[in-house]
Amino acid sequence: MSGNTLGKLFTVTTFGESHGPALGCIVDGCPPGLEISEADIQPELERRRTGTSRHTSQRKEPDQVKILSGVFEGRTTGTPIGLLIENTDQRSRDYEKIKDRFRPGHADYTYDQKYGFRDYRGGGRSSARETVMRVAAGAIARKYLRERLGVSIQGYLAQLGPLVLEPKSLSTVYDNPFFSPDPSRLEELEEYMINLRRDGDSVGARVNVIASGVPAGLGEPVFDRLDADIAFAMMSINAVKGVEIGAGFASVSQKGSEHRDEITPQGFLSNNAGGVLGGISSGQDVVVSIALKPTSSIIVPGRSIDLDGNPVEVVTTGRHDPCVGLRATPIAEAMLALVLMDHYLRHRGQNADVTSKFALKTLLPGGD
Amino acid sequence: MSGNTLGKLFTVTTFGESHGPALGCIVDGCPPGLEISEADIQPELERRRTGTSRHTSQRKEPDQVKILSGVFEGRTTGTPIGLLIENTDQRSRDYEKIKDRFRPGHADYTYDQKYGFRDYRGGGRSSARETVMRVAAGAIARKYLRERLGVSIQGYLAQLGPLVLEPKSLSTVYDNPFFSPDPSRLEELEEYMINLRRDGDSVGARVNVIASGVPAGLGEPVFDRLDADIAFAMMSINAVKGVEIGAGFASVSQKGSEHRDEITPQGFLSNNAGGVLGGISSGQDVVVSIALKPTSSIIVPGRSIDLDGNPVEVVTTGRHDPCVGLRATPIAEAMLALVLMDHYLRHRGQNADVTSKFALKTLLPGGD
Amino acid sequence: MSGNTLGKLFTVTTFGESHGPALGCIVDGCPPGLEISEADIQPELERRRTGTSRHTSQRKEPDQVKILSGVFEGRTTGTPIGLLIENTDQRSRDYEKIKDRFRPGHADYTYDQKYGFRDYRGGGRSSARETVMRVAAGAIARKYLRERLGVSIQGYLAQLGPLVLEPKSLSTVYDNPFFSPDPSRLEELEEYMINLRRDGDSVGARVNVIASGVPAGLGEPVFDRLDADIAFAMMSINAVKGVEIGAGFASVSQKGSEHRDEITPQGFLSNNAGGVLGGISSGQDVVVSIALKPTSSIIVPGRSIDLDGNPVEVVTTGRHDPCVGLRATPIAEAMLALVLMDHYLRHRGQNADVTSKFALKTLLPGGD
Amino acid sequence: MSGNTLGKLFTVTTFGESHGPALGCIVDGCPPGLEISEADIQPELERRRTGTSRHTSQRKEPDQVKILSGVFEGRTTGTPIGLLIENTDQRSRDYEKIKDRFRPGHADYTYDQKYGFRDYRGGGRSSARETVMRVAAGAIARKYLRERLGVSIQGYLAQLGPLVLEPKSLSTVYDNPFFSPDPSRLEELEEYMINLRRDGDSVGARVNVIASGVPAGLGEPVFDRLDADIAFAMMSINAVKGVEIGAGFASVSQKGSEHRDEITPQGFLSNNAGGVLGGISSGQDVVVSIALKPTSSIIVPGRSIDLDGNPVEVVTTGRHDPCVGLRATPIAEAMLALVLMDHYLRHRGQNADVTSKFALKTLLPGGD
Repeated sequence: MSGNTLGKLFTVTTFGESHGPALGCIVDGCPPGLEISEADIQPELERRRTGTSRHTSQRKEPDQVKILSGVFEGRTTGTPIGLLIENTDQRSRDYEKIKDRFRPGHADYTYDQKYGFRDYRGGGRSSARETVMRVAAGAIARKYLRERLGVSIQGYLAQLGPLVLEPKSLSTVYDNPFFSPDPSRLEELEEYMINLRRDGDSVGARVNVIASGVPAGLGEPVFDRLDADIAFAMMSINAVKGVEIGAGFASVSQKGSEHRDEITPQGFLSNNAGGVLGGISSGQDVVVSIALKPTSSIIVPGRSIDLDGNPVEVVTTGRHDPCVGLRATPIAEAMLALVLMDHYLRHRGQNADVTSKFALKTLLPGGD
Repeated sequence: MSGNTLGKLFTVTTFGESHGPALGCIVDGCPPGLEISEADIQPELERRRTGTSRHTSQRKEPDQVKILSGVFEGRTTGTPIGLLIENTDQRSRDYEKIKDRFRPGHADYTYDQKYGFRDYRGGGRSSARETVMRVAAGAIARKYLRERLGVSIQGYLAQLGPLVLEPKSLSTVYDNPFFSPDPSRLEELEEYMINLRRDGDSVGARVNVIASGVPAGLGEPVFDRLDADIAFAMMSINAVKGVEIGAGFASVSQKGSEHRDEITPQGFLSNNAGGVLGGISSGQDVVVSIALKPTSSIIVPGRSIDLDGNPVEVVTTGRHDPCVGLRATPIAEAMLALVLMDHYLRHRGQNADVTSKFALKTLLPGGD
Repeated sequence: MSGNTLGKLFTVTTFGESHGPALGCIVDGCPPGLEISEADIQPELERRRTGTSRHTSQRKEPDQVKILSGVFEGRTTGTPIGLLIENTDQRSRDYEKIKDRFRPGHADYTYDQKYGFRDYRGGGRSSARETVMRVAAGAIARKYLRERLGVSIQGYLAQLGPLVLEPKSLSTVYDNPFFSPDPSRLEELEEYMINLRRDGDSVGARVNVIASGVPAGLGEPVFDRLDADIAFAMMSINAVKGVEIGAGFASVSQKGSEHRDEITPQGFLSNNAGGVLGGISSGQDVVVSIALKPTSSIIVPGRSIDLDGNPVEVVTTGRHDPCVGLRATPIAEAMLALVLMDHYLRHRGQNADVTSKFALKTLLPGGD
Repeated sequence: MSGNTLGKLFTVTTFGESHGPALGCIVDGCPPGLEISEADIQPELERRRTGTSRHTSQRKEPDQVKILSGVFEGRTTGTPIGLLIENTDQRSRDYEKIKDRFRPGHADYTYDQKYGFRDYRGGGRSSARETVMRVAAGAIARKYLRERLGVSIQGYLAQLGPLVLEPKSLSTVYDNPFFSPDPSRLEELEEYMINLRRDGDSVGARVNVIASGVPAGLGEPVFDRLDADIAFAMMSINAVKGVEIGAGFASVSQKGSEHRDEITPQGFLSNNAGGVLGGISSGQDVVVSIALKPTSSIIVPGRSIDLDGNPVEVVTTGRHDPCVGLRATPIAEAMLALVLMDHYLRHRGQNADVTSKFALKTLLPGGD
């Protein structure tokens, strides 16, 4: 399969560039009978949308999704679902000045090397705009997972540059433009972003995502492990440079007696595994953390070369996010939903006859 | 495709359990004409082999690989290569005592939940023994990459529990049982492992892998990015809980002006990208780091449940590694080779007509 | 992959129903640099279009294709190509009368059994209207094959019910609404269709397709043979019940001394193989023949059951082709182009280093 | 995936050449809990085995299969099943004389063109010996289909050269070396083969296969239709040049009123569809027919060229079947089983929630 398809049974194939007429995707393999309409998808697009705050790029677009197929009388038919979002606010002239040079840290150089030339308008296919279709497709997966399996997926901004945020209030994450899980830090975040923008620079971020209610048994080792597919899906998001499951890199310095999650008849006593053991979901929360690099499109001048190999200085003006991580929360949620959905169908295909013996979850410290 | 196949054009499909009669794999899609024999594969198996030091499990097996097909008169024919390694030192009676209970932190529980029952002998399919075929298949990919493209792949132990190792002497990595890149730290490592074993505990590790000479252009965005497939392949290794490319999680607190790798006509001035921009190789070194959790099979007693859900105490005796990370270096090298090989063929399939314009590498600080 | 994707490196994923707002597809894996525009695709859609003659269904639609992505400044960029065709002439009320019953010989029954319910408007996803995207995608493949490899693909109607047509004038096939290769038989065909329509019945057809200039070496045995993928692609066309390569079923009664195509330094002396030996193209013409059943939507009353299992009589009025085979020629050509394109890229991916030793073609009887 | 893997959820990947040390395969995705042992597979291998009669090639090999993984305590574990058959009767010296030339009608030429050189011993990978692993893997699928779903699969020789055989006694097919369904024709078949062998020639054959008890709903249109995957699987068998489903090519001259299978509350009144409508199984018998060409390895001299392009005369001595179709019945049965098994799991993955409303079968003429 070529590179723009995700999944094996529940698949998402996307197309579209930042400044083309439209972006779209095909969701294939969705079980029939799911009630779905544009109204189920649009709110998730709103959360992702550029322009929700002055801290993300000022592109003004409604991102209005249209369902073109696969739904009849309000329910999925089991046939492929075509989704389309038209681009309405392309300002391509902004990009004329970078068409003949490579922004350092950007995909400009590698696209040119791979394909021989590139659509330089707004980053073309390499633009983060592409993730809009991930969120749209993810909305369908999330609805199925929530309604049929009781799975809920929640992400949040865990770190912005030097500022580490604690998950104090997950229920308020969607109420602020940073997806901060700590409402008491909003002013601090705002101030940090104002200074960053003033400096014409950008910064990295960490986003965490948690899926609760995931049934045990999802994952197809030895290669197509649930955590391997999660790592794949997360690393496929623009700007992601690292992925952790559960304790992640902290497990490097853990002892086995500390890391392993002990089991009692009432549940697991901890969740260092992040909900995945041997590549298969355990029924505990699936816990994922990703690192996003600072965007490369900044005003601070940088050294680079042009198409002829001559040295040039690059300054990126135009609309750009000083922190792409600020928009990554809904995208990471969508990717986790897509992976879980695909693995649920795959597991059901092979193992529909097997009945899980247990339904253990993680016991919280307080103990419910 | 079911879960035991890796890759799309250069594919590896594996089978085999820890205590079955044999393990094997099929390498499909290898270009014809590559000179290959068991002698090319065996040394890499030796490096991975259990029993190379007293710090890894004392299973004594030659891991003798046989090429069963796909090679004629010393060269690959383009048809599938069947590889087989017989198990000769199974001591299944060691495992009778854990057959009715789940080791905490182990795949015992999830395999049982997924499939309804499990081959409990030595972990069955979830055993790290499975990785022997990854190394065997990887040896073929490495040879092609090295001979045809000039790609070299080098891994090393970057951290053992609390001990961080600097890459002072990569040429000596294979000369010590820890794959340590710093020969001056060997005694310290040895002492740490002796204490760990004495305590009946285990510890995590970090392993780094670097591929040099990778041509620019490999990777198929937006999903099948080179880094996404690397993350997938690495996370599919037993015990891996985290993957980083380039600066990885350090990029969270980096500024854009710091992270981006500036370009001059002579080369890149840094490599925070880890050799991948926009999901496509840049020609710089591909730099990967992985976190391995401490193994769950330890002597320190732990709480768990049995098959009927009753509470039990689990103590794992038998042959087990106190640090699976010690053996992970050759495995991580193999996985990186397999991903690069697959992406090279995929890129060539789609873009054989395109000529790369540049061949920039990272300029070293000293400046060659 | 779910069921709506064709190919492995050059892939086509389609969506859309007969009476939904639009049909579309994503062509992924097209090599960069191919000059393409809507003007290259539209003529092939015209050839397929319903309403080209009074013998096919009278739906009046322009089938205007839009390229939504993957093309920049007139050339493919190597990124996915999104294609869209809006439905503009749906008359869904025609189908109210069959919504609660199954047309005998139609997919009504099986879609309902598989998915629990169905989009009954115009056959929904099972409508032959779906093939419009195959033709659109095929146009891109054909252009690449023709311009880069010199491959030409030509189909024709070989049989209409009892009327067998000889390939007397392939150059005139596109000049008549039957795709007849024998201009002298047009009146006869017309008369046959008039009588058939008058009787309210339908009839089957045979279509042949030939690809010339195919390079030797395409096909990936033992499963993904070129002929196996051709059989797959052809049988996936609505109404196709049989596929032959070369001598096809005639080879059942042939002797080996008769069937084998002898070779001379000047070329092959015959082409019973149909251009494929051992699943790999030989460089001879690839010759394919398919059988299309008579459409099931006819006026002649037939016995069936309704959604509750009660016996009903079914009469299909509305717009229907009395011979779906009449429109199958461009579709079969497109499918052959798509398979050849995918196999060309796959072969190039694995075997780009190999140089073909010979370039033998079939010697024609006269001997050029 | 490269070309040696069949299926998507229930996959079979094979390796091995005619004269290598062994052939093998990996069956991945088999549901856990199926009782299986070598004793379930061996009888199907015996039926396929060369040397069962003097009319097939005289290679004497036990074809003893070993299960190397995926089965524990007599039941499948859900992990990949490794199967191995060692070659014990290679007589490679027979092939020295054809190593530098291409047998006309054989894959010699195309393998050489594709890969640059070939394993000429016994046809290497292109040998029909490869099908032994298809039969072994198929035996597992058949057992699951039979025991869990009540599906039975029965093939037979429908035509040998000019001799057409009627299915008079399907229960006796396995009792004669021709797989003839008409015991009264055995002498005639024997005499025909004796004459053919005396002439040093070969002949084609037609084989039919029928699957009964197939549940409605299998098949994933618009591309991965059940009939499309059957066509693929059948055409991937050595020497197959044509595939029909149901009425097949006879439907070309049928009227719609004749072809369509009318439905009553008691069942379908005919089965021209061959059990597949719109690419989805209807619950009727799945009926497949294939054409096998005469083998190209014959004693009658033929014109060809050598590796340098010079004209040569080719006479193939050694062990060869004068009619490969005689051995095709168990192979075709196996392929049909593999396709049905894969589609059953795929359907279950996507549509496990859907309950079929009807369970109609074909009413036999007599009317049971």
